[in-house]
Amino acid sequence: MNVNDPQNSSVFQEWMENRKQEIEHTLEQLLPPPDTRPAVVHKAMRYACLNGGKRLRGILTLGFCECLGSPARRAMKPAAALEIFHASTLIHDDLPCMDDDDLRRGQPATHIQFGEANALLAGNALLTLALGWMGETAVPLPHPPCMLVSELARAGGSEGVIGGQIEDLEAETTPADEEKVMYIHTEKTARLIACACRCGAICGGGCASKVERAGSYGMNLGMAFQILDDILDCTQSTEKLGKPAKSDEGHGKMTSVSLWGLEGARAKAADYTQKALEDLESLEGPTDMLEALTRWLLEREM
Amino acid sequence: MNVNDPQNSSVFQEWMENRKQEIEHTLEQLLPPPDTRPAVVHKAMRYACLNGGKRLRGILTLGFCECLGSPARRAMKPAAALEIFHASTLIHDDLPCMDDDDLRRGQPATHIQFGEANALLAGNALLTLALGWMGETAVPLPHPPCMLVSELARAGGSEGVIGGQIEDLEAETTPADEEKVMYIHTEKTARLIACACRCGAICGGGCASKVERAGSYGMNLGMAFQILDDILDCTQSTEKLGKPAKSDEGHGKMTSVSLWGLEGARAKAADYTQKALEDLESLEGPTDMLEALTRWLLEREM
Repeated sequence: MNVNDPQNSSVFQEWMENRKQEIEHTLEQLLPPPDTRPAVVHKAMRYACLNGGKRLRGILTLGFCECLGSPARRAMKPAAALEIFHASTLIHDDLPCMDDDDLRRGQPATHIQFGEANALLAGNALLTLALGWMGETAVPLPHPPCMLVSELARAGGSEGVIGGQIEDLEAETTPADEEKVMYIHTEKTARLIACACRCGAICGGGCASKVERAGSYGMNLGMAFQILDDILDCTQSTEKLGKPAKSDEGHGKMTSVSLWGLEGARAKAADYTQKALEDLESLEGPTDMLEALTRWLLEREM
Repeated sequence: MNVNDPQNSSVFQEWMENRKQEIEHTLEQLLPPPDTRPAVVHKAMRYACLNGGKRLRGILTLGFCECLGSPARRAMKPAAALEIFHASTLIHDDLPCMDDDDLRRGQPATHIQFGEANALLAGNALLTLALGWMGETAVPLPHPPCMLVSELARAGGSEGVIGGQIEDLEAETTPADEEKVMYIHTEKTARLIACACRCGAICGGGCASKVERAGSYGMNLGMAFQILDDILDCTQSTEKLGKPAKSDEGHGKMTSVSLWGLEGARAKAADYTQKALEDLESLEGPTDMLEALTRWLLEREM
């Protein structure tokens, strides 16, 4: 599908918008009400989750479930779980002892709004809840019944997202090389995006090999996504990003751009996008929307 | 069983010591090796977990599994999961933005040893891993297959342990009353101990009503345990506790002792212990060791 064709583009935009709204609605319903005791943590959890993110991870989960022939609702709770898990990592990343960022998506970061301790604990609560939601979702045979829990625990754990966060922080004080930047991009960003795709394929009833291919797509898309993020951090304004621009440079971080230059980074992102598209082709399902999503991410401006 | 009888006491001490060693061994085996990339987080995880805690939660999990007639090994992974989950809450509790304690079990707190960001992330990794281990454990029918995940996610979440941590922090700055202290003790301490007992009963093949009674025992034992903790905080030295003594007073915290006085608190602890013993009786299993454990906890000096 060519998303530059106005008609296709509007079909794709509508598909994205619908999935996004379903995820928002699910989060609104499933997150504990803001007056649940203790109110401050539940308000902080909702503040961090219901603030207009792109919902990329959740949309990918729904998209892969549909692509494999099952209704999106079968993957709705895992989609929501991936979103709140991601939100928990953002809360913690912004804390003073981590990246120390005051602004997130154009709003005060959670610890600015609610205080550090409440933000830390709201992050923990979202992390815990995400794994709980994975455990509450029916997994089609022949996969083990708690496979979604294992997928998220592995992707989000010390040899996944957390590993990436650790080395990302190290890279602020010790010189990084290409291998380290690749590790950080893979673990901190691509791993959870791949997990989102795998969880969607699992809920959609995909066999082990389709789950693998969904994961491979997610790794490639995740790398392209992170390289674009590095590019946008250099080229866009704080206003457009909704977070401090040039924060990587300010933190002295080695990024795709400092490593390969702007044009080199753009070429890398295009390469990964191409690989992701090849993974989709190998799935042999109706991948139109996922294809459009893949191309759209490469062209995004925020 | 009368644990004051020297012979019974040594049987009980041996039972405790064996269970403790099995848990230590399991943690040693299941935690990622310290040189796993990134090494700093895996070293911090092991540092926080392999530091000679009492292993009360894990021992209760094994004890309830055995009491219901199954071998302890069926509950070994959940027992280890409860211990690392507990360790993750201790890492986070000690952070500067929380209780700001430098000492834990006679050693530098994890953030003193490894830095704040690494400690925060090691805590997250342990929390994630604990839920992952729960998902890897077979749950006997008729319980749902991911029941252990749900148990820990609920007990450890925003309406459980985290709720207790939040109100505990609030109580440092706003006057607390008896209701609030009871809420904090229930959620911050008793909830996870009850979860340990419930998980053991589930792994042991207990029916829903036995799981409930195990949970009730755990709530009562947990309350007695926390009241004792408050008493010991006032009456013991830093050296004996392995953490700063009188830290509650220093933080201006309302505790069992400030609420009921020393003698009143002792009486409350004895009441809860009595209720816990009644819960055990209603289980109709071989509860000798759990009974001995219950009485022993009331008499502990650290």
